[in-house]
Amino acid sequence: MNLLLMHPEEIDGSFARIRGERVRHLERIGGQCRAGILGGGIGHAKVLEQNPADETALLELDACAELPPPPLPVTLVMALPRPKTLRKAIACAVSMGVKELHFLQSFKVEKSYWTSPFLKPDFLAAETFDALMQAVDTIPARFFFHRQFKPFVEDELPGLCRGRLVAAAHPGGKLRLADLPPPGETPAESVLLLGPEGGWTEYEYQKLLACSNTASGVTLGRRILRTEFALARLLGALSDRAIDSDQPFR
Amino acid sequence: MNLLLMHPEEIDGSFARIRGERVRHLERIGGQCRAGILGGGIGHAKVLEQNPADETALLELDACAELPPPPLPVTLVMALPRPKTLRKAIACAVSMGVKELHFLQSFKVEKSYWTSPFLKPDFLAAETFDALMQAVDTIPARFFFHRQFKPFVEDELPGLCRGRLVAAAHPGGKLRLADLPPPGETPAESVLLLGPEGGWTEYEYQKLLACSNTASGVTLGRRILRTEFALARLLGALSDRAIDSDQPFR
Repeated sequence: MNLLLMHPEEIDGSFARIRGERVRHLERIGGQCRAGILGGGIGHAKVLEQNPADETALLELDACAELPPPPLPVTLVMALPRPKTLRKAIACAVSMGVKELHFLQSFKVEKSYWTSPFLKPDFLAAETFDALMQAVDTIPARFFFHRQFKPFVEDELPGLCRGRLVAAAHPGGKLRLADLPPPGETPAESVLLLGPEGGWTEYEYQKLLACSNTASGVTLGRRILRTEFALARLLGALSDRAIDSDQPFR
Repeated sequence: MNLLLMHPEEIDGSFARIRGERVRHLERIGGQCRAGILGGGIGHAKVLEQNPADETALLELDACAELPPPPLPVTLVMALPRPKTLRKAIACAVSMGVKELHFLQSFKVEKSYWTSPFLKPDFLAAETFDALMQAVDTIPARFFFHRQFKPFVEDELPGLCRGRLVAAAHPGGKLRLADLPPPGETPAESVLLLGPEGGWTEYEYQKLLACSNTASGVTLGRRILRTEFALARLLGALSDRAIDSDQPFR
């Protein structure tokens, strides 16, 4: 836990009362830590009281006036992975600063993945919360699920892609990440399209490429990486091409 | 399993007899799959017999004449992480093509990490084997453990760094990944130095920077990433700066 994140409703003036897992972390860390408010600023908290018995703590906050890091200017659209991988993908993307995640049906997505409890709002909120505490960020991410490939790709994706660089990761992609154009030539904002284990079908890949005239197929080379490592690799490359990627972008 | 990897001693002419986990995978995949020989080439295997009872299978191989992908020209030197993270770091680095991994003591490395069973050669070989099957590679990685920081950094590291670009990941690093010099100006081969959770101490960081006149401190920005995602991010950036990173480099 690099940041103690709090819900606004846990805060009363310059005090906060928190409970659960975070209290156990506090016991290890000691008297003072960095703290932030979900959707708000970052500062410090001083522990005034700790009650291990009922797992609550009373904290005193400073002004929490530091801004969170700017979002990563990448919208993620990926085929819905198996539940275990979904958790890792969320941990990766949210900690790297992605604020909009779309999960999509694809031919190689097993139907059972859509019934996973991990897709429930409470679970997604909890995973996001953990990833923000890891990354020292406070701005939550939004999740969208599209259980039908074609309507999403035809009706919604072109709008998402407008004015953005679009990179479709695919084994047969023609562009290497190192060849991505610098943002002077193309928008700094981008959309990353990432396929399922086994890749998009050729039909899907062509449909995705057709949704924007700035869409390119990108390849990671011959090696096949686990979804979460491919994601970190791709988001990193898109982040590195954005000018001043650590500055606010809008 | 993207590649069925076999030990040379499992092969007899154009036949192979395998056992264990890989046989269970074969049951899901069916009659034919990509196959490779540890330390050797890549081709295809046809399943001749499968005995689920004793988990063995008899395979017929083609010439396995395809070369494995070239190594990533990066030597990894990282503070020994907690055992669970060590597994993820190995999965990440080996699947991305790293062939030489050094794990190092650092002030913030807990002593208990050094007694983990995950440091045993058998375990490392098994993790490597899995990562190679994931990545469709056959060339094993070598592991080195340095339980004393100073002797390694003073006596061994300068030799490892000679003729290579050296990137020390550190929150206070001055260079962003996007600013890494292109390989035309510096060697394509590099050494990545990655600290423990909480980072190198300032003393350690300065000692590391002093081991090469091409060493730079690099930063990932304000966000703090989990070790395995930081690793994928850093290895990716170093890979992207190497010209023809998907071509043999020596």
